[in-house]
Amino acid sequence: EQVRVLFKQIFQAGDAPKATEKKSLLISRKHQAEDTVVRVGDFQVGNGTPFVIAGPCSVENVEQMDAVGAHLSKEGIKILRGGAYKPRTSPYDFQGLGVEGLKILRDAAKKHGMYSVSEIVAPEDVEMACEYIDIIQIGARNMQNFELLKAAGSVRKPILLKRGLSATIEEFLNAAEYIASRGNSQIILCERGIRTYEKATRNTLDISAVPILKQESHLPVVVDVSHSTGRKDIMFPIAKAALAVGADGLIIETHNNPAVALSDANQQLDLPQFSNIMNNLRESGYLSVPVGV
Amino acid sequence: EQVRVLFKQIFQAGDAPKATEKKSLLISRKHQAEDTVVRVGDFQVGNGTPFVIAGPCSVENVEQMDAVGAHLSKEGIKILRGGAYKPRTSPYDFQGLGVEGLKILRDAAKKHGMYSVSEIVAPEDVEMACEYIDIIQIGARNMQNFELLKAAGSVRKPILLKRGLSATIEEFLNAAEYIASRGNSQIILCERGIRTYEKATRNTLDISAVPILKQESHLPVVVDVSHSTGRKDIMFPIAKAALAVGADGLIIETHNNPAVALSDANQQLDLPQFSNIMNNLRESGYLSVPVGV
Amino acid sequence: EQVRVLFKQIFQAGDAPKATEKKSLLISRKHQAEDTVVRVGDFQVGNGTPFVIAGPCSVENVEQMDAVGAHLSKEGIKILRGGAYKPRTSPYDFQGLGVEGLKILRDAAKKHGMYSVSEIVAPEDVEMACEYIDIIQIGARNMQNFELLKAAGSVRKPILLKRGLSATIEEFLNAAEYIASRGNSQIILCERGIRTYEKATRNTLDISAVPILKQESHLPVVVDVSHSTGRKDIMFPIAKAALAVGADGLIIETHNNPAVALSDANQQLDLPQFSNIMNNLRESGYLSVPVGV
Amino acid sequence: EQVRVLFKQIFQAGDAPKATEKKSLLISRKHQAEDTVVRVGDFQVGNGTPFVIAGPCSVENVEQMDAVGAHLSKEGIKILRGGAYKPRTSPYDFQGLGVEGLKILRDAAKKHGMYSVSEIVAPEDVEMACEYIDIIQIGARNMQNFELLKAAGSVRKPILLKRGLSATIEEFLNAAEYIASRGNSQIILCERGIRTYEKATRNTLDISAVPILKQESHLPVVVDVSHSTGRKDIMFPIAKAALAVGADGLIIETHNNPAVALSDANQQLDLPQFSNIMNNLRESGYLSVPVGV
Repeated sequence: EQVRVLFKQIFQAGDAPKATEKKSLLISRKHQAEDTVVRVGDFQVGNGTPFVIAGPCSVENVEQMDAVGAHLSKEGIKILRGGAYKPRTSPYDFQGLGVEGLKILRDAAKKHGMYSVSEIVAPEDVEMACEYIDIIQIGARNMQNFELLKAAGSVRKPILLKRGLSATIEEFLNAAEYIASRGNSQIILCERGIRTYEKATRNTLDISAVPILKQESHLPVVVDVSHSTGRKDIMFPIAKAALAVGADGLIIETHNNPAVALSDANQQLDLPQFSNIMNNLRESGYLSVPVGV
Repeated sequence: EQVRVLFKQIFQAGDAPKATEKKSLLISRKHQAEDTVVRVGDFQVGNGTPFVIAGPCSVENVEQMDAVGAHLSKEGIKILRGGAYKPRTSPYDFQGLGVEGLKILRDAAKKHGMYSVSEIVAPEDVEMACEYIDIIQIGARNMQNFELLKAAGSVRKPILLKRGLSATIEEFLNAAEYIASRGNSQIILCERGIRTYEKATRNTLDISAVPILKQESHLPVVVDVSHSTGRKDIMFPIAKAALAVGADGLIIETHNNPAVALSDANQQLDLPQFSNIMNNLRESGYLSVPVGV
Repeated sequence: EQVRVLFKQIFQAGDAPKATEKKSLLISRKHQAEDTVVRVGDFQVGNGTPFVIAGPCSVENVEQMDAVGAHLSKEGIKILRGGAYKPRTSPYDFQGLGVEGLKILRDAAKKHGMYSVSEIVAPEDVEMACEYIDIIQIGARNMQNFELLKAAGSVRKPILLKRGLSATIEEFLNAAEYIASRGNSQIILCERGIRTYEKATRNTLDISAVPILKQESHLPVVVDVSHSTGRKDIMFPIAKAALAVGADGLIIETHNNPAVALSDANQQLDLPQFSNIMNNLRESGYLSVPVGV
Repeated sequence: EQVRVLFKQIFQAGDAPKATEKKSLLISRKHQAEDTVVRVGDFQVGNGTPFVIAGPCSVENVEQMDAVGAHLSKEGIKILRGGAYKPRTSPYDFQGLGVEGLKILRDAAKKHGMYSVSEIVAPEDVEMACEYIDIIQIGARNMQNFELLKAAGSVRKPILLKRGLSATIEEFLNAAEYIASRGNSQIILCERGIRTYEKATRNTLDISAVPILKQESHLPVVVDVSHSTGRKDIMFPIAKAALAVGADGLIIETHNNPAVALSDANQQLDLPQFSNIMNNLRESGYLSVPVGV
């Protein structure tokens, strides 16, 4: 019995950092006062200039990604998104093209001078994915898939970590700490709405989380304006609010033909709608006009 | 039996408007396309110029309201708030000064060239309150106190209607309809945060509700940035987000000495903090600089 | 300034009971260890014998209440419910028959040797209602309508207080304290489901609230199995769970012809369904068989 | 373009089962009317006799598991639980003993004539774990870790699937379908509370989910009475409610010395408390008395 008590005491000693957790988390402001700037090739995330990640929910085929990439690059978008491994509620829904999808995404991004981001769902795929894409996304359903977080912490690629469906801000920060504690501090946090009783929107955008995350942590924060509301009709005001509140960037789902999209058909913008929102954000001063435009 | 079925059919016929509810609600865009501008004396709410309602949580005494009113009027604030009837969770908490509080509020507002808003909690007090104050507030806990809504619909004073703690947007609009259906269409809707699992903030500001309300209804919408987060430290970014998303105005709790406030001591700004936020909102273009300043 | 600080200090002194709130609440176990038994005429609520309150959502007419009362009294039901003042989301929905409904309810109850319970929504109606009905219900939407609570505290009739849509247990207990603090300790608490993200049920029955309420307070607790789930198909197991967890009684909405009910048509049992559930609850030992049956 | 539309149409054809989802889910009552009985060696889960899974939150060492196993087997418990891979919010909390823990659990279970259940968190560990333990648990945080679900579907061991922190019943059933669709239909569903605004309990036990799950699916359902409330003081009534509502079994966390437990110290019963609850459940008829006792 004495041994067990002792064992516990030793662990409690080991737990000491937890008591003063906020002070000691690697991702906290207390640990590092200045903002982390995540470097994606020559692109900087979190350097004070707001930016937009865009692209379709799912990578579907070469033509689709080429059409979307061509359009987005003309709009000054530097990071192209597209899902190759899709976590879907039903096993009978489209599950993504897998590694083939990663290749299509990479090729489209390269062709149009962009970087790529895509969700990885299995720990053993993280290293492989690093060969193809520039930012590895960990999705909302996997925010507390700690094995995946540890794998993401073991590579040297930027990680885009989405907040879980009903994660507290504290749990979200601790999920980021799993990655950082393994040595990878190139992390972008993403607020994407939380689950509440209100069904007028797909999720409830927790806009207050953005300044709290910026205050508690030195990591850049982006807002996924597509998943957080699931409504195109309020996307422009929501995008403005996200930038006004201090987000470093936005994620906007965009498809060349949303009506035939294999997933999330209702919430993806088509290309003219995307350009329209970008123009409005530039005209109202929320996004800077690209140099030379 | 046949009679009862017939009775039901008659009522169902009477229910017909409900089936096509959105079309027929008096407060809906379908009923009235142009924005309602609520007139408070010579002040206009919802005319496109963002504004701020400010003042303490509770009216405590003459000196307090005079000090706050003097400061706020210099900042260009036109509507002074202060609670005289306080709905408090515990019966042993400070319940407000009642009609005496309304008089103190009225005097302070008049002295400093402002209008007044205060919460009324009993249907039979609505008419009486009209003699003292310029806008009658119905609080979150009373959003579905239908007797109070009906009383508010029967007078000819502007009503500030707060969203219930966990009201859906649809329920909120229907609560406004209770007022409008009695003949009073001078209604200001107020988003003040909803109750969710997240406890980093007092409530979760449902920022998406603002553009949805503006889209569904022609009524002006304000955001209570004090109650929605309960945190002073993120009030400036939240105020910017609320205005960026399209709110017509803000409510900011302000006290001349928050440390000794009789309620909500932690979330009220002191007067210099209030001026600081106002300056920041003006400098960043979210509020217009008052003429002659 | 010194005066204000002093004023605050005086109030803080007055707040002292709040700090040690649980100890001092009149409705708490700390204040009174033994169970409160609420007396409704010669019927006892909370004496250890589980009971059922039943009747339609709304009082619609004499024939309906007579048919329901006749059936329920044969099943040994002692308390007949029926809404005369209906708090409805839309102002265009059936609002109840008012005092005429109270009279119909009273007459049906008397004729069949039962007591009556009905919701009152306006503070000024509480005294009037005492002339007609035996238990005054305060509904979920009015749980923090403190004026109504105070009115209920001022009469000497038993009060059935429903938990608010998203009230915490602590807020619920404090709402009961509003009533008790005015001198009326004949209070029955009612768990009726809370609002959550899950939409498979109308509300989420918070079954854990029952033993917590019984532990924290000496008041009897009933479970409204109709509103908490809104589903007839799981009513029997839910009724068993409510009694197993320690509820003193159940509320079951029952109508002689649910298909033509003016409100909540989908969740009300018809009379044979009601008898069926009662039989099942008796056979499985959750309800005692009435003497002489 | 035509090709893309065609591609979409083909996928939509492939989506057809989804439209009629409930009919076609392998785990649904529509697919299989009779109850699935999960076989764990010679023990049957879901055969109509309620049972209890018990054991500590975490496997800590040989002595602990031996002490707990010895006690529980005397109480007639057939399934011993214990966590070897612990998903913890913070990376600095005790993470479990890993495969060493599985071996300790296996040895304790064997020694005392019991079967074992333990959570596995990485897809690649599922096969390995089958060598040591009898039931593989998938935890709440991993309910939509679809790679893990697929791995669990590929082995021939019973799976204990816990509902996600804020999963809907529909998402929960679809998660089970991921397992079943890979060929493993030996699945036990576990309701363990959902995340709501109410903080009086660790989670809110969604008791209504049990009869709904039993109605929608043929799989056995158990209730984790430790995690759903996080409170020992209401565990006995909650256990009764869970069995009364139709659960096939319970999970109760039990530790030989909760005060020094490496995780969840507050919610684990000690051995005498466990025996006390078992006695009470037997005496009140919720659990059957073991043959020969």
